[in-house]
Amino acid sequence: MTSDAAQSAPAGKPDAVLRVKEIGSAHVGGRSVSLHGLPAREIVFSPGNPPVTIDPNGDFEIEQMYVQYVRLESPRARYPLLLVHGGGLCGVTYETKPDGLPGWQDWFLRAGHDVYVADAVERGRASWARSPEFFRGEPVFRTKAEAWELFRIGPDGSWRTAAEQRQAHADGRFPADAFDQFMKQSIPRWSSNDAAIQAAYGELAQRYGPFVVVAHSQGCNFAFAMALAHPGMVKAVVAVEPSGFPDRCGHVLAQIRHVPHLFVWGDHIETSAMWVRVRQGLDAYRDALRDAGVVVDELDLPALGICGNSHMLMMDSNSDAVAALLHGWMAKQGLTNG
Amino acid sequence: MTSDAAQSAPAGKPDAVLRVKEIGSAHVGGRSVSLHGLPAREIVFSPGNPPVTIDPNGDFEIEQMYVQYVRLESPRARYPLLLVHGGGLCGVTYETKPDGLPGWQDWFLRAGHDVYVADAVERGRASWARSPEFFRGEPVFRTKAEAWELFRIGPDGSWRTAAEQRQAHADGRFPADAFDQFMKQSIPRWSSNDAAIQAAYGELAQRYGPFVVVAHSQGCNFAFAMALAHPGMVKAVVAVEPSGFPDRCGHVLAQIRHVPHLFVWGDHIETSAMWVRVRQGLDAYRDALRDAGVVVDELDLPALGICGNSHMLMMDSNSDAVAALLHGWMAKQGLTNG
Repeated sequence: MTSDAAQSAPAGKPDAVLRVKEIGSAHVGGRSVSLHGLPAREIVFSPGNPPVTIDPNGDFEIEQMYVQYVRLESPRARYPLLLVHGGGLCGVTYETKPDGLPGWQDWFLRAGHDVYVADAVERGRASWARSPEFFRGEPVFRTKAEAWELFRIGPDGSWRTAAEQRQAHADGRFPADAFDQFMKQSIPRWSSNDAAIQAAYGELAQRYGPFVVVAHSQGCNFAFAMALAHPGMVKAVVAVEPSGFPDRCGHVLAQIRHVPHLFVWGDHIETSAMWVRVRQGLDAYRDALRDAGVVVDELDLPALGICGNSHMLMMDSNSDAVAALLHGWMAKQGLTNG
Repeated sequence: MTSDAAQSAPAGKPDAVLRVKEIGSAHVGGRSVSLHGLPAREIVFSPGNPPVTIDPNGDFEIEQMYVQYVRLESPRARYPLLLVHGGGLCGVTYETKPDGLPGWQDWFLRAGHDVYVADAVERGRASWARSPEFFRGEPVFRTKAEAWELFRIGPDGSWRTAAEQRQAHADGRFPADAFDQFMKQSIPRWSSNDAAIQAAYGELAQRYGPFVVVAHSQGCNFAFAMALAHPGMVKAVVAVEPSGFPDRCGHVLAQIRHVPHLFVWGDHIETSAMWVRVRQGLDAYRDALRDAGVVVDELDLPALGICGNSHMLMMDSNSDAVAALLHGWMAKQGLTNG
């Protein structure tokens, strides 16, 4: 693994000091809505102040997303990187890791990429709307048990409430001691907002693209569909442990022949009934892309002898080495300048 | 105003390129909780996948806050700046302004400060917990009408649903054309989380302090109380349009004699019944601080001939000039090195 990673590392040393032209952010997409007919009520907001009568009816902005960007003085990548998080999470996925070590935002900046980090509609700084009036259904809060097994920190059935009794994979690279810290990143989600999330990503691509998109888990579905809907604005898709794929395959895939895709898989998929099932679907989507003439590579880490990676590759102990493999693939696709 | 601002501007030109040592983030504070006895249900998360049975019961992390920091290679300020947002908002308050121009995060970085931007418990990337099981009561969603008048974009009664009919103050400095864009930053809030928010800010101060704290609106209450609870970790408090103050004044204020305070007020307070009332309370808190021997200065912008500032000073057209006044005050307090 070390030699693989070394071969794929960015040319020269990573930047010890970042020369940053701009750090900025924006809310993108969404729409104006109005609410009528709900009753008023009294609330005290700041101690020392009298109660305030709140009329919940009125006008709101909903379904916007948030993006934060760091632009370098002299980027060495040809296009900015857009980092797209997975379900029940937000852009923090790519920032400092739960164990306090630098994450992929840091790595790719030091390798010379402008980096955009997204919070999808309903997550993090994108904010969320009144439910069930605007967001249909109710929010889902992921339990630690679900996360532990879904993210393959340990195999199915390995969750224990007490931290010292949790059974992580023996060779697991996720910092299991920081699992509770990781769970502080968890963000409630709805199952009814996919169309709004996709629309906002489309506006993001049109406004700030073209991008090289690195997506994770549920975010890969949005990234695949973003490429199909805005083929001029997506220069490549790196799908890290994708959990879904667009509905209407086949007949539109040929229009993204020029958009190379990389599928990245961690270890221990066979210990998770859900991931065995999910991967079958993704393997079929990969094959459909290839049949349509899209360049699709696969980075199956255990097949390369890189063992123990969880679903949260960007937080695993070898996250730098995996990032270097992604960067190396981008370089081979002609997406970097050095 | 121009000459005031120029006199208070940082020595030398602002940095055109930021030499950044580290961009990072963390979740701070919070606690582990468990939920029992709620019914399970089925949900489809990613198109193409079968429904998943969700058992909402289990273990969660709640009441953590989020902080993102940018550390410079060679900061010229003696302590990092902690930027604390107000009610119904998150740290985006200090990033790029709704009209797309740079905000205070950018300004203070270029003036040589390490900058920490907080999202309080329940806001933005801090995430939020199931309600009413963990967060008591229900979330409040701020309407555009309330924001327009509370933030003094226009006087009481000036809100109109149609953008072209809204009556902003004639000399107002808030970019009224970007008001709907601003409202995309709005974050639901509870009125029941003050203790949890305060506790998390305390942990933040202990872990990353000492700070110079710049707080806004509701955030000033948390900043005042943070100084009282952690007097060694708060080197100064800049209270920008504070909306509240700690409950138990008087007997503890003397212990922050060494923590200078600056109160900053925008214009048109007399056009808002709420702000007239709120300011009376804050004037009393200011006087109590002075009586206890705390250095308290006041930057009453209209009294200085700087007219038209809204409640959202950091988004107004003269936000750079106001930032320079704050920086100048910090310099006078010996909190910068040049």
